[in-house]
Amino acid sequence: MEIKEIGEFGLIERLTANIHPQNSSTIISIGDDAAVLRYEDKEILVASQMFMEGVQFDLTYIDMQHLAYKVAMIAMSNIFAMNGEPRQILVSIALGKRFKVEDLDSFYIGLKNACQRWNVDIVGGDTTSSYTGLAINLTCIGEVAKNKIVLRNGARETDIICVSGNLGAAYMGLQILEREKSVYYQQVEEFNRKLDAVNLNGNKTQLAALEKEREIIANFQPDFSGKEYLIDRQLKPEAPGEIIWKLKEAGILPTSMIDISDGLASELKHICKESKCGCRIYEDRIPIDYQTAATCEEFNLNLTTAALNGGEDYELLFTVPITYHNKLQELDSIRQIGYITKASLGERIITRDGNELELQAQGW
Amino acid sequence: MEIKEIGEFGLIERLTANIHPQNSSTIISIGDDAAVLRYEDKEILVASQMFMEGVQFDLTYIDMQHLAYKVAMIAMSNIFAMNGEPRQILVSIALGKRFKVEDLDSFYIGLKNACQRWNVDIVGGDTTSSYTGLAINLTCIGEVAKNKIVLRNGARETDIICVSGNLGAAYMGLQILEREKSVYYQQVEEFNRKLDAVNLNGNKTQLAALEKEREIIANFQPDFSGKEYLIDRQLKPEAPGEIIWKLKEAGILPTSMIDISDGLASELKHICKESKCGCRIYEDRIPIDYQTAATCEEFNLNLTTAALNGGEDYELLFTVPITYHNKLQELDSIRQIGYITKASLGERIITRDGNELELQAQGW
Repeated sequence: MEIKEIGEFGLIERLTANIHPQNSSTIISIGDDAAVLRYEDKEILVASQMFMEGVQFDLTYIDMQHLAYKVAMIAMSNIFAMNGEPRQILVSIALGKRFKVEDLDSFYIGLKNACQRWNVDIVGGDTTSSYTGLAINLTCIGEVAKNKIVLRNGARETDIICVSGNLGAAYMGLQILEREKSVYYQQVEEFNRKLDAVNLNGNKTQLAALEKEREIIANFQPDFSGKEYLIDRQLKPEAPGEIIWKLKEAGILPTSMIDISDGLASELKHICKESKCGCRIYEDRIPIDYQTAATCEEFNLNLTTAALNGGEDYELLFTVPITYHNKLQELDSIRQIGYITKASLGERIITRDGNELELQAQGW
Repeated sequence: MEIKEIGEFGLIERLTANIHPQNSSTIISIGDDAAVLRYEDKEILVASQMFMEGVQFDLTYIDMQHLAYKVAMIAMSNIFAMNGEPRQILVSIALGKRFKVEDLDSFYIGLKNACQRWNVDIVGGDTTSSYTGLAINLTCIGEVAKNKIVLRNGARETDIICVSGNLGAAYMGLQILEREKSVYYQQVEEFNRKLDAVNLNGNKTQLAALEKEREIIANFQPDFSGKEYLIDRQLKPEAPGEIIWKLKEAGILPTSMIDISDGLASELKHICKESKCGCRIYEDRIPIDYQTAATCEEFNLNLTTAALNGGEDYELLFTVPITYHNKLQELDSIRQIGYITKASLGERIITRDGNELELQAQGW
């Protein structure tokens, strides 16, 4: 169905019909000039992030439902990274003419799934048209008790540096998606060459054979076997809310925290800069999944570079006082990878063979 | 300067260097994963709006500084329309390669001017690149005392319908801008035709004369004389905060309110729908500036249609109990244009010659 058939207001009604706020902090949701919220004894957290077609996402790889899920998880991740809990989200979306009502339906299914996962209310946003690509902006609002906020600037000398989950997987997932995309386009190109040749000689048997080939190419199935976890990490990231809960249950309050979106190296340098300190991390302590390692070998990429600079991990990087060392060891999916130093000692990684290298937030 | 020369983080530092929060509700501003706010005894208002190049704005007409001022005023207008006061803003912007650091500098000057006007803090957002046009998203956060929120659904039978300022001016400003743009492109087209001809015959004197003409066209000055007010209303709208203050001072609490972005007819129909009521407005009571009227005549456009459906007025439409009739008359720049009826009586406009017509939110 074309969007213009139901119009902007019809569209908004359709998309928001089943949205019922779950949080007591949501007083008035979608439908007026602004949403109304109430946070009496809490600090309010708010972060906004924009996602542009061709820059942050490629619709060749990801469908609208997964895209919505992913951007919502990324938006919530900002709130978790402050030790908060996401509560509301506002969604702006600008779509070109090639999008149908059904595309927006899919987008909202993904969005609602993500919001349900962390009990977040969709309270507003904007829907407009675009002459060009798809543009999305998410604003996420959350809460945290006044004395429980964790910023980037609280890391202190001797603090332990921790990361959740494992790193580099989303980046390697992207490599596989890009490889399969190029395999697909090679097939299409070759097909077009054959078609041109057959069109010239006008051979009907060959033309019929090509029609079958066209069908096969149209049903192209990318080969993700044995790489499912990496594809999932790229297309369906999860906001690190469980880590926040685990830390809370264990009575551990980090001294600094950030979510890993641009890569471990870049984020750790943010913490060091804001906290005015240095750091040492150990290459052999960086958590890496075996699929990531195997795929790095297959692609002839350096594993540590993928883990340090891959990005899109949406894991948490945080520091805790050294007194929590034993308590931390009892927690699944948290790895202690190094420690905070004086600023004068710089930011270094200690390699497997014992060398100290400058930590660099390098691109690829 | 190219943006890639200073990078994303360098850019953010440059743009936010002079931003110092003014509001007590802003606890932590730009620089962490999320901003931290505190609103203890107030309701929080939050609205998000997206602006796409070629859809909501045309950079042929408006420069980056005015554009930022305009979108910020529109964002704040949503908060005023709830009887609130804007306090914080989050700004996401996606730019293509044609934009320079200086363009963003201009954008931030406009943004800061708008924020200063209403004492609003810039607390966050996102800066990213775009493969296509410019995309902007603003999220505005504000506050209102718990019992002072004005929604769209509170209008009651016999309430007076009021509008602030005057209507249709921004729309007529746009007509003038579009006319001058087409005059300019006609000159460019004619010049190119002449140039083609001269290039063919290779006459050097004619070529030199054309170079002079090129310069004249490059310095094209649009003719806005006598239309300055309309251009201003289109390019430099003001959020209707003064009306909110006037109503507060006069002790008048509207029963419903909305800001006029899509045109009076469309907004009044929203109020009637949400409040489950009908309305009567009088054509001769709709406030219109004399420049709007004169320009409508010049363009052979229907004045009332411009005022009802022009849009981008960013005035307030609101309803008040009839007991405030006399008090309202004392207030400058507020016009009583009709009254609320039972839903069964429909939504009508009474024309100058006494006919009753169905109120329609028509496009042009």
